[in-house]
Amino acid sequence: MLFLDLIAKKRDGGRHSPEELEFVARAAADGSVPDYQLAAWLMAVVCRGMDEGETVALTRAMARSGETLGLSGLRRPKADKHSTGGVGDGVSLALAPLAAACGLAVPMMSGRGLGHTGGTLDKLEAIKGFQVRLPLPKIRAQLKKISVCMFGQTGTLAPADRTLYALRDATATVPAQPLIVGSILSKKAAEELDALVLDVKVGSGAIFKDAPSARALARALVKTAGGLGIPTVAVLTAMEQPLGRYVGNALEVRQALEILNGDERADDYLECLLALGGWMLKLSGRARSPQAGADRMRAAIRDGSGLKVFRAMVKAQGGDPRVVDEPDRLPKARRARTVRALRDGWVTRLDARRVGHAGVLLGAGRAYKEQALDYGAGLELVRKVGARVRRGETVAVLHAADAARLADGERELRAALEIGSRPPRPPRTVLEILR
Amino acid sequence: MLFLDLIAKKRDGGRHSPEELEFVARAAADGSVPDYQLAAWLMAVVCRGMDEGETVALTRAMARSGETLGLSGLRRPKADKHSTGGVGDGVSLALAPLAAACGLAVPMMSGRGLGHTGGTLDKLEAIKGFQVRLPLPKIRAQLKKISVCMFGQTGTLAPADRTLYALRDATATVPAQPLIVGSILSKKAAEELDALVLDVKVGSGAIFKDAPSARALARALVKTAGGLGIPTVAVLTAMEQPLGRYVGNALEVRQALEILNGDERADDYLECLLALGGWMLKLSGRARSPQAGADRMRAAIRDGSGLKVFRAMVKAQGGDPRVVDEPDRLPKARRARTVRALRDGWVTRLDARRVGHAGVLLGAGRAYKEQALDYGAGLELVRKVGARVRRGETVAVLHAADAARLADGERELRAALEIGSRPPRPPRTVLEILR
Repeated sequence: MLFLDLIAKKRDGGRHSPEELEFVARAAADGSVPDYQLAAWLMAVVCRGMDEGETVALTRAMARSGETLGLSGLRRPKADKHSTGGVGDGVSLALAPLAAACGLAVPMMSGRGLGHTGGTLDKLEAIKGFQVRLPLPKIRAQLKKISVCMFGQTGTLAPADRTLYALRDATATVPAQPLIVGSILSKKAAEELDALVLDVKVGSGAIFKDAPSARALARALVKTAGGLGIPTVAVLTAMEQPLGRYVGNALEVRQALEILNGDERADDYLECLLALGGWMLKLSGRARSPQAGADRMRAAIRDGSGLKVFRAMVKAQGGDPRVVDEPDRLPKARRARTVRALRDGWVTRLDARRVGHAGVLLGAGRAYKEQALDYGAGLELVRKVGARVRRGETVAVLHAADAARLADGERELRAALEIGSRPPRPPRTVLEILR
Repeated sequence: MLFLDLIAKKRDGGRHSPEELEFVARAAADGSVPDYQLAAWLMAVVCRGMDEGETVALTRAMARSGETLGLSGLRRPKADKHSTGGVGDGVSLALAPLAAACGLAVPMMSGRGLGHTGGTLDKLEAIKGFQVRLPLPKIRAQLKKISVCMFGQTGTLAPADRTLYALRDATATVPAQPLIVGSILSKKAAEELDALVLDVKVGSGAIFKDAPSARALARALVKTAGGLGIPTVAVLTAMEQPLGRYVGNALEVRQALEILNGDERADDYLECLLALGGWMLKLSGRARSPQAGADRMRAAIRDGSGLKVFRAMVKAQGGDPRVVDEPDRLPKARRARTVRALRDGWVTRLDARRVGHAGVLLGAGRAYKEQALDYGAGLELVRKVGARVRRGETVAVLHAADAARLADGERELRAALEIGSRPPRPPRTVLEILR
């Protein structure tokens, strides 16, 4: 098989056979085909597309391009969750230990933040000492012992994705549904899951700004996962305003700890968590219905078993477990500034993308890949959409290293914020379930 | 300007500004953008296309990506000819010296053969000592002295084309009209021509198998050349059977010498030569009409001035000038074989592509880029389409290094050859003029 022929075939709108896609995945994994040929093929895929069968075959081939997690020895059902990314979306931090407390094994492979969206790995590293780059044997051992492990993509798990993802980023070939699906699901398939829930975000702070395009991806994900034999549900959730009460790395760890301690102020965060967790338990056969699964999750919050698993995970991955009971030990930014309402009214808008951008300006996120993070930086969102506010009342508290960043962050937050004279329609969090 | 943004723009069907295309050409010329980004952009162009204005701008930018020939000091009009490639198409070998004999300056940049089509440079190198890799100062000096120079693409003339051409070859992004046009015309524009004739071949032995697709490219070439300010005519000529009486490198030099000596047996070759040459003189203002130009060319054959220029060119470029008067000094293959008609009838088909392939099997052409050539190998085509033949009569003579090659060549020639019971319609050579 000549790679040149594969490029020409896709260029002319042809359909790839599973063998051809295996050849592509192998070439991407072992570097046997030059980058410029892979790049031409990727652009041909962006322009000509791939059908359902091709998407399944590509994803499977990518999943098989390296090692698998090799957890067949585990008795518990293996379940994972993936989010397409949002602002304040630290749900994984609480969901993974809760799911483990409810009887699942949770091998959660996560990523880093770029642009206005945060990354789970960055948030975990806000806990002093926490290791996310783990070798496979360590991941396996930890899952056997405490049923949860949160880690970064290893070089040996779906290595084809690693190459293609980096190349897509550098060749403007990111926005192609089969490639997005392949990238997300190849890593999940390499985890050999029994259940998968996908949180597909919709709104200004998400990749997909509107429900139809988010729904299209969600459908493709669910179908492809089905083709791979992974029971999967996609939950469409709102990302018009940030999720929860915090944006920032250490701040979102604090959010997870509040939730695990039974604090229900972040009601949208909790709703999202319970919807996802309920389905994880249902799909894994550990609950009769998603509602029963959500109830089981609530119980694991109430009895403290989720918090206990979280503590065990921090300890197992080298982090300082004292932060679990003393969140004030988490990193703090040097300076803070209170942002107050300039008028009476109701918060009618709190644009997620701009709040995310405010987070980057404050030091909580990355504008480019190599940028260092200020783990303590970010925003506390005291008033969110629908809240009544009085002039002079605190709307948010900003955290950053210096006054200049605080000023930049405030300017951006004020641009994100709209206070109107009438109460808005109450915002919804969980929009739709696709299975 | 970020190259990534340009890729995304073309990916989404956008239109490039001249500045953007200059950026592309500069990047290709100086290597400042990685190959994989250029490859993704090329594929986006193949899939989304480019309009007329973009094609002109890209071609101009490629032409300006390096040095120009710098012939402004010459008093003669500068004219060139380009063929899209065929079998037995050694017309340039006779046309260039004839045009110089008729008062033009002819800087003819040519290429090598690949697959079933031959290349002018390979044919010239069949003359012992003939140099085609010349530095620009040498080309300029020779043009001043004898008004003709036939040479290979230099590293400094339209270097963007060199990079893009090689990359297109390696990424299945060859078949895109704007890229083909840009590649052909950027080199011509760098020659700063006063006139250009294009021989666009149509038929089994050509890139374009049918008139509509050849016409589409011809139109795009003429329009783009017009946009660049180069008076240009495209001549559509037949390539269903090979042109002339020979296929092979030394054999096609012999063909040119026969023509320059007034031998008119190769009537299709002569018709093609006179049509192209007539237009070269007309466009350059050296003849009132293409017919008058063709007459002028005939006169330069009759009075021997074309042959004289050919001899001067061989000498100037280091070749053995004795071959001009003693063609038997040209390289010869070790073995020959006569192919005879198996029945009485008329030659109704002599498929150009298959004859070209027979030439490759005999050693006259390249199946892959680095392959060495047997300069003496090839075919003499004694009977062409329309000729009456009797059983046992010689149809062709094959030349090659050994019997195995001769057997392969004969098999392929027999597959190309059809002898029918009725005379076919007389084949046409010049099909259409586009200006």
